[in-house]
Amino acid sequence: MYSFRNDYSEGAHPQVLQALADTNLEQTCGYGLDHHCQEAADLIRSQCMAPEADVHFLVGGTQANLVTITSFLASYEAVIAAHTGHVNTHETGAIEATGHKVCAIHSPDGKLTPALVETVLAEHNGSEHMVAPRMVYISDSTEIGTIYTKAELAALRECCDRHGLLLFLDGARLGSALTAPGNDLKLPDLAALTDMFYIGGTKNGALFGEALVVTTPNAHFRWHMKQRGAILAKGRLLGVQFKALLKDGLYFDMARHANEMAQRLQSGIAALGYPFPVASPTNQQFPVLPNTVARQLEALGYAFEAQEPVDDAHTVVRFVTSWATPAEAVDQFLKDLAACQ
Amino acid sequence: MYSFRNDYSEGAHPQVLQALADTNLEQTCGYGLDHHCQEAADLIRSQCMAPEADVHFLVGGTQANLVTITSFLASYEAVIAAHTGHVNTHETGAIEATGHKVCAIHSPDGKLTPALVETVLAEHNGSEHMVAPRMVYISDSTEIGTIYTKAELAALRECCDRHGLLLFLDGARLGSALTAPGNDLKLPDLAALTDMFYIGGTKNGALFGEALVVTTPNAHFRWHMKQRGAILAKGRLLGVQFKALLKDGLYFDMARHANEMAQRLQSGIAALGYPFPVASPTNQQFPVLPNTVARQLEALGYAFEAQEPVDDAHTVVRFVTSWATPAEAVDQFLKDLAACQ
Amino acid sequence: MYSFRNDYSEGAHPQVLQALADTNLEQTCGYGLDHHCQEAADLIRSQCMAPEADVHFLVGGTQANLVTITSFLASYEAVIAAHTGHVNTHETGAIEATGHKVCAIHSPDGKLTPALVETVLAEHNGSEHMVAPRMVYISDSTEIGTIYTKAELAALRECCDRHGLLLFLDGARLGSALTAPGNDLKLPDLAALTDMFYIGGTKNGALFGEALVVTTPNAHFRWHMKQRGAILAKGRLLGVQFKALLKDGLYFDMARHANEMAQRLQSGIAALGYPFPVASPTNQQFPVLPNTVARQLEALGYAFEAQEPVDDAHTVVRFVTSWATPAEAVDQFLKDLAACQ
Amino acid sequence: MYSFRNDYSEGAHPQVLQALADTNLEQTCGYGLDHHCQEAADLIRSQCMAPEADVHFLVGGTQANLVTITSFLASYEAVIAAHTGHVNTHETGAIEATGHKVCAIHSPDGKLTPALVETVLAEHNGSEHMVAPRMVYISDSTEIGTIYTKAELAALRECCDRHGLLLFLDGARLGSALTAPGNDLKLPDLAALTDMFYIGGTKNGALFGEALVVTTPNAHFRWHMKQRGAILAKGRLLGVQFKALLKDGLYFDMARHANEMAQRLQSGIAALGYPFPVASPTNQQFPVLPNTVARQLEALGYAFEAQEPVDDAHTVVRFVTSWATPAEAVDQFLKDLAACQ
Repeated sequence: MYSFRNDYSEGAHPQVLQALADTNLEQTCGYGLDHHCQEAADLIRSQCMAPEADVHFLVGGTQANLVTITSFLASYEAVIAAHTGHVNTHETGAIEATGHKVCAIHSPDGKLTPALVETVLAEHNGSEHMVAPRMVYISDSTEIGTIYTKAELAALRECCDRHGLLLFLDGARLGSALTAPGNDLKLPDLAALTDMFYIGGTKNGALFGEALVVTTPNAHFRWHMKQRGAILAKGRLLGVQFKALLKDGLYFDMARHANEMAQRLQSGIAALGYPFPVASPTNQQFPVLPNTVARQLEALGYAFEAQEPVDDAHTVVRFVTSWATPAEAVDQFLKDLAACQ
Repeated sequence: MYSFRNDYSEGAHPQVLQALADTNLEQTCGYGLDHHCQEAADLIRSQCMAPEADVHFLVGGTQANLVTITSFLASYEAVIAAHTGHVNTHETGAIEATGHKVCAIHSPDGKLTPALVETVLAEHNGSEHMVAPRMVYISDSTEIGTIYTKAELAALRECCDRHGLLLFLDGARLGSALTAPGNDLKLPDLAALTDMFYIGGTKNGALFGEALVVTTPNAHFRWHMKQRGAILAKGRLLGVQFKALLKDGLYFDMARHANEMAQRLQSGIAALGYPFPVASPTNQQFPVLPNTVARQLEALGYAFEAQEPVDDAHTVVRFVTSWATPAEAVDQFLKDLAACQ
Repeated sequence: MYSFRNDYSEGAHPQVLQALADTNLEQTCGYGLDHHCQEAADLIRSQCMAPEADVHFLVGGTQANLVTITSFLASYEAVIAAHTGHVNTHETGAIEATGHKVCAIHSPDGKLTPALVETVLAEHNGSEHMVAPRMVYISDSTEIGTIYTKAELAALRECCDRHGLLLFLDGARLGSALTAPGNDLKLPDLAALTDMFYIGGTKNGALFGEALVVTTPNAHFRWHMKQRGAILAKGRLLGVQFKALLKDGLYFDMARHANEMAQRLQSGIAALGYPFPVASPTNQQFPVLPNTVARQLEALGYAFEAQEPVDDAHTVVRFVTSWATPAEAVDQFLKDLAACQ
Repeated sequence: MYSFRNDYSEGAHPQVLQALADTNLEQTCGYGLDHHCQEAADLIRSQCMAPEADVHFLVGGTQANLVTITSFLASYEAVIAAHTGHVNTHETGAIEATGHKVCAIHSPDGKLTPALVETVLAEHNGSEHMVAPRMVYISDSTEIGTIYTKAELAALRECCDRHGLLLFLDGARLGSALTAPGNDLKLPDLAALTDMFYIGGTKNGALFGEALVVTTPNAHFRWHMKQRGAILAKGRLLGVQFKALLKDGLYFDMARHANEMAQRLQSGIAALGYPFPVASPTNQQFPVLPNTVARQLEALGYAFEAQEPVDDAHTVVRFVTSWATPAEAVDQFLKDLAACQ
């Protein structure tokens, strides 16, 4: 009946689509050099209180990750990531395909800490026989739904400064993170505490698009974008969308809704006695279901993903909500789940 | 007043945008595995009379070129291209960034011939000290507006077969080529005579998108796509657009209009005595203008690109028309050009 | 007084050097196509009982690893290695620089097992969103001195066959492994049980050189070699050396001597009460020394490497012996160690 | 009877081999950090009058080229080379395999000039849609035997300074160039006029080895070397050889002899009426021979390479002399050639 498979199951929020329609026949420059992109970038700089930041618009997350990482690293430099990090597991070796090692370290909650970063550093001796870790990659919210606090991000920043590392925050699900219960980070904090981060549109109501905010200058970033096929001919589509998302708070309204639906789902599932190994305040929820129950739900037409097996009879599954998830769909699901056995 | 800078100055044809709006709230699978992509692929296979072909949807031309080339070549293999070929000049070394040499050869009309291909082959001795040319890259229409005839394409196919080469046709402007005066190629010919080609949407009325038709199987093509950041999360956007473009001939109608506007422009400019070094039957026109005239046109608000200098006082400039170019804009331009001196 | 830093502190065994002198003024083909390389390859095929194997000579270990791995993997394919594996830690990201991910997994003794390999496989879902593990990389002896038994290698082979994986054995210290107490592997076993392995010369009495034995054909291996700068102009130097090493058992005699010196060292150090966290039957020994003792030894002029810290006051250090290590040097060292406090 | 195939048909000059034997049992550090390399580097800095230069020792030419080029270029930067340049034609795409485009331009004598460099620059518009040419690669002597004068090199330097380009001189056959009739360049000129160049040992009496002199600092050059498998474990072998080559002028004595033998060959061949399309003052000679004559010489046991066909009956062939070529071999060859018909 309903797909909780991901947060990009629909097209765009109707206001976003309307903005594309409204500007459709304007003639503009290509490649993101148009006034829409300029205005969206200005808006982002303003909301980030980062008047000097560069803003680049990319089409998707893997593209944003690979272009950003390769453009800031020398070939012998590496990026540190949690074992669960998207760049480590779900990008088909995209980072390695640009020549860089991902130094992955296990993290129970999907987050990096100064201690974990320093564990990786301690395994490297600074000689020419080893890669030089040079960047820390984190996601907020993480791939397993957790979020960073301001204190945690500040601690990472301090650690990066101490060791000469760049800090890159993958914000594919940034909206959900910034509107989650317990969050105390705002856009200006991200601009101040990271070297670069992106505001993810694809997973929060845009047709597509990620807005990368770079506070550590890189004069040739667009050369790297082009070389990786990451400059969209009609770049305006990105500018138009991000203006629509950000000018009146639509971006955060949508994310807040997604989180509310996720919390409703979590409460309901937990009330039925199913455990959640990791507590997620964001729009991804990971309960453990008996395989028999999961199969009944699928038979009813519900879609969701298996995250990892627990044992022969149980699986951690993933439910994702979005700006488009109706409360009725959640309630019906919970009713149907209650009927499973 | 009007921009002849390129054929992606506007958004999408209204019917394309409408199709996106009509399907906007449907829930579908991500990554192009949805029914819209399936239906668009079926439509393309049918129109190409290539029931066994693989169809992949990519976001843009550079992305399509780099993924296709690297996925079909071993690391020591190279691609042969005309010196003017997009992959040789206008992709910031995207092909080389995937590890492959582009063996470029000068061609006066932007087209490759068996003789040119064999000139490149003759410079390679088949030993392990040299790259092994393994693919021929051509564009139709070419970067300077010319088109291939069926006989020319068949001759290249025969040459490729003789030498064990793959033939890849970049169809970023395929619509314009296939509807140009003098063209005798149709989609089924392209499927039969090339190993892979694409139907360009970005430059002919889509928001974005290129539909790659592959008749030489490559079971892991999607792995290569993902590794290069080239799988769109909401892949359905590509399927929906290509259905709208192809189901009732809109794609060819738009291209025919663009060509007509280009011919109108060409006739008018030629009538004023300005020469065209290369005859183009497609939507790019390359007259030689005195620099003084070019500057007057720019002062009037016309936009177009300089292609290359002829001498200190003259430049080859490029005018591009599209599905969206009004006849009135062309006529006004010609009137304004006539007034220049 | 003496360097136990590594097994390449000297030049070559005098017989190897003599062979180079004896053939010095012969004119031969370049690039390893000469009769010495041919004869050395025949000798290796014969000693491996692998008449169909390809034999390639490379200059060093990192070069051999990177050329071999990249030449057998498609760009989206990855190699599985122990966390301690040379390709994972000590090659400055050489494998990633060719575009491939190293999937590393912790192993307490530096060896891979079917269970560890399958743990890595279980983290990959076979979809286009993840790399495809395609090769298993092991070292014998390992980077921490341990060796594989025939049963262990056969189990890995069976595991690889079951999962469609290639098995690559880095034999930089193969001589030491094959002559170690407890070893039951011989060259023909390696040829039969792996897809490719190399007989390391650099660390066992050659000036340089690794002889790669490939039983899974790769017609273009030399193209990959050349592209990575790994075809030596005077390739004969490799053929001459491997003939000298292998024709009368010199290779194994030297390795046996190195092992005997290592055992002498180990017994002596253990007798003084210093622990060895991992038991190594080969020419690398890893005792834990108090940092005060390590500093006294260094002050006496002994050279060796720190492997990893144990706590603030103790370090795992590495002592390496070679074909050139005199028993007197070991005995003197043990006497000096006994006097440390 | 005699191979004129190349200048690396023999081992090393006996004095070089003796130096290796004399130092064979010394214990030293690995990786080129030993005192021999230090002393050789000091000697080179002194002979180049470049006390601040970095000196790195690499094993061969392709390796030296690929490590140098990739370590000095950002990924979107390209290297300009003559069409005949070794990096363009004879390295199996080694430069592209590190991600960089080689911008090749035809040059009748194998040399680049400011005009040719500027022709390449003029084809690039400085935008993010094109690679940024950043380095000029030249060879001295060139691949077709010609040499640069000091005035020509100074003009290139001035051109590079004007355009912000690095100048890299491949000196695989530098000895032959610097001792050729008409040469007015010395080592200090090369250090002053290039950003980096190498003194080729492989083709002038060493077993192997190229000494790279870098006057534009690159603090992480050794990281790049290691990542490409280009740090020799027993790096001392390179230091020992270059000391032997350079300390008493042996390097230039050998090159002078090779040139004399080449001139003797050229005079003799020309006297028999065979034309030389390009005049070479160095140790490679390229006469045009009738194919019937070439076949007779091969039947007599002479070895040499075909360079390129002239017509169906004639071929440009290549004869290479070296430090080891006896005058008697040249004279006998000329006698045999005179007898051909």
